Amino acid sequence: MTPERYRRLRAVLDRRQPDLLVVLDEVHKPHNIAAILRSCDAVGVAEVHAVKARGYVHRKATSAAGARRWVPVVEHPGVAAAIDRVRAAGCRVVAAHPGPASVDFRTLDYTGPTALLMGAELPGVSPAALALADSLVTIPMLGMVTSLNVSVATALLLYEAQRQREAAGLYAAVRLDPERYGRTLFEWGYP
Amino acid sequence: MTPERYRRLRAVLDRRQPDLLVVLDEVHKPHNIAAILRSCDAVGVAEVHAVKARGYVHRKATSAAGARRWVPVVEHPGVAAAIDRVRAAGCRVVAAHPGPASVDFRTLDYTGPTALLMGAELPGVSPAALALADSLVTIPMLGMVTSLNVSVATALLLYEAQRQREAAGLYAAVRLDPERYGRTLFEWGYP
Ligand SMILES: C[S@@+](CC[C@H](N)C(=O)[O-])C[C@H]1O[C@@H](n2cnc3c(N)ncnc32)[C@H](O)[C@@H]1O
Ligand SMILES: C[S@@+](CC[C@H](N)C(=O)[O-])C[C@H]1O[C@@H](n2cnc3c(N)ncnc32)[C@H](O)[C@@H]1O
Repeated sequence: MTPERYRRLRAVLDRRQPDLLVVLDEVHKPHNIAAILRSCDAVGVAEVHAVKARGYVHRKATSAAGARRWVPVVEHPGVAAAIDRVRAAGCRVVAAHPGPASVDFRTLDYTGPTALLMGAELPGVSPAALALADSLVTIPMLGMVTSLNVSVATALLLYEAQRQREAAGLYAAVRLDPERYGRTLFEWGYP
Repeated sequence: MTPERYRRLRAVLDRRQPDLLVVLDEVHKPHNIAAILRSCDAVGVAEVHAVKARGYVHRKATSAAGARRWVPVVEHPGVAAAIDRVRAAGCRVVAAHPGPASVDFRTLDYTGPTALLMGAELPGVSPAALALADSLVTIPMLGMVTSLNVSVATALLLYEAQRQREAAGLYAAVRLDPERYGRTLFEWGYP
């Protein structure tokens, strides 16, 4: 490994956010998962929790410009298990759900431990998952269509979190614990 | 047409932004174009200018949840023609281009007449188009991958414009001229 490569890996690890997670509730289109993982890597999401989509042949997203290598994806059999897991990590669960029962996504604070819960392409967040969420947020829609593409919606929430966390100095200090930092550096450096 | 439908069409037209345009420089994947059109509809983009992608069989994006019906797509043979067209409409051209030569997308003002220029999936914005742009903007990337999905990048810029335009009151007044408003209402109402 070149010294530049080593510095680059460390610079990225220095900004990883162990308390910014994403839960995908049966999102299944490979191009959406790929786009989501790229955005997650770009804002420092430490890991993604994916609920396996029923009725779809499971395929690994491949064209994420390599993003799957940088963002671990933990799979869960159901949404309750995924939510339990991020709650155990101390996260509040914010479900992205278009509609009048939800608050504008820009009014929430994402600097505390947060898991963003995103719904599947057609049905959206399942009723079971909505009932488990701490808050529901919506992205304003001023046109005729009633929802955004799921990878688009995920990125809008993530970059609002990035903006707030940048302002709060959360990218200025190392946030991973030393054990995880060292292990990840090793995995990234020697694949 | 029901009275509710009529009111809904008018409410959407009341918020259309004739001076917020998008230029796609050979973006060619149907799912990306579909996602972009949904975001355009959602923030009130009045029209999209698409440069035909060379080397790809031209196909209409179909799964835009109907967004193509609400956002006209004007096709151009080359990027210079597309840029001429949006300039003739009074717009400044802001190219989305990841990298250190570009300024952070959140530092720009999008309340004036603006065309956002987005690059193709692999090559990005062509050098010819970059040379014609008035400004280059970048979305911060804090991870290992060096670019976002193009529909994701488009939405992040559009929602920054939406945020600024909302604050500036640009959605509070009707912005389409009466001729265009009436013609669009007619087309939407009687397809
Ligand atoms: C295509 S949408 C699902 C649409 C579904 N018919 C619904 O109404 O929930 C897929 C997911 O993207 C997210 N999403 C899309 N548009 C959104 C918006 N305007 N506000 C919040 N989340 C949104 C949600 O997580 C949603 O479950
Ligand atoms: C997948 S990217 C193209 C990548 C290409 N290798 C490059 O470096 O330009 C497709 C388009 O999305 C937009 N884009 C993606 N990530 C961006 C970022 N971080 N900042 C600004 N624009 C971005 C740009 O318009 C880009 O041309």
